[in-house]
Amino acid sequence: MVKIAEPSRRRLVQIARILSKIKAERITSVKLEELTGWSGALIRKDISIMGYRGGVSNGYEVKALREAICSALEIVLDASESEYRACIAGLGKLGASLLENSIFFNTPFRIVAGFDSNVNRTEILRASFPLHPAARMDSVIQNEKIVLAILTVKDEEAQSMTDRLVKCGIRGIVNYTGEVLIVPPEVMVENVSPVLALNNLTARISGKSGGLV
Amino acid sequence: MVKIAEPSRRRLVQIARILSKIKAERITSVKLEELTGWSGALIRKDISIMGYRGGVSNGYEVKALREAICSALEIVLDASESEYRACIAGLGKLGASLLENSIFFNTPFRIVAGFDSNVNRTEILRASFPLHPAARMDSVIQNEKIVLAILTVKDEEAQSMTDRLVKCGIRGIVNYTGEVLIVPPEVMVENVSPVLALNNLTARISGKSGGLV
Repeated sequence: MVKIAEPSRRRLVQIARILSKIKAERITSVKLEELTGWSGALIRKDISIMGYRGGVSNGYEVKALREAICSALEIVLDASESEYRACIAGLGKLGASLLENSIFFNTPFRIVAGFDSNVNRTEILRASFPLHPAARMDSVIQNEKIVLAILTVKDEEAQSMTDRLVKCGIRGIVNYTGEVLIVPPEVMVENVSPVLALNNLTARISGKSGGLV
Repeated sequence: MVKIAEPSRRRLVQIARILSKIKAERITSVKLEELTGWSGALIRKDISIMGYRGGVSNGYEVKALREAICSALEIVLDASESEYRACIAGLGKLGASLLENSIFFNTPFRIVAGFDSNVNRTEILRASFPLHPAARMDSVIQNEKIVLAILTVKDEEAQSMTDRLVKCGIRGIVNYTGEVLIVPPEVMVENVSPVLALNNLTARISGKSGGLV
């Protein structure tokens, strides 16, 4: 397998998602540049690093390119193929907003459990999958073969909840809290808190045009 | 000013945020490796690219390194300095969950308005800042000097709301929707939808250890 660096990997994931939504049969790197903001040259390089040789002057074949990316990155984007079982840890307002299943419709991600240390919440909230008190996390994660978690607890609980998820064998965490999580090297974290996203935005705007303030 | 590539820029933003939360006076790249998952060598390289020469064998001085990063990236991490004025576009469950001001406490981001095309929502929801019908976006964004937006509308509304934000002069968008937004090159987008974050996680897990499924 080709080794693909993380920045390329991230761009390719985003490109594959774009290709899933596109109705045309072919797409040029110029069009991809317009849709992503990355330069056409960079996009062509990412695609060629991956070993894909299907590009011609009138663009890439959408379906073939998408399949090549999914296969090179070993990812699944559709609901039809294998599924990744995930849970939501923390059912405050943010966690509760993710209980709407339509978000994960037609994706390979299946949310099969929600957890909260507050039993009131797990009893009052409604979802199309069971909500459990955090005390039952260990057995539920094992029985349900859950491998991914979306972390939406309060910042104060972020690390202790992470420790529990890691102990239960979770392989990856989407972190919506403002905390920096400490995890063992085999566990991956994607940090997507609104404050970090805003920090990244302002850093990019400064890098491009010299600041906002 | 030194040109810093985007992957380094992102790592440095995250490192600066970690340094803000650390109580020790010094920190080594080994400790930063543990906290971030990036190799110590990569972290040392990012810091040196930026032109910082303050590292010694017993680590970096936390405060000095943090200030150097903020200055090199021209970013602000604290509430005390200049502020970035932001709005929330879309007050469904996800948008409403961001109305809790504590998320942005002690950050440079000040949310000064919320918008929704559904007037019921803007009348019923409560926030410490005004909520407006989307029809008033243009004048509010101008009068309030809003430069950033957090996009939390439904996917179907994502592009039309983005077009309106761009027309109002917004410079950066944190995109929580599942859509790929089309924006002019001077507008930056940070994509943080749960599905994209899960896609990135699975790609990274495959890259590291050969797959989950």
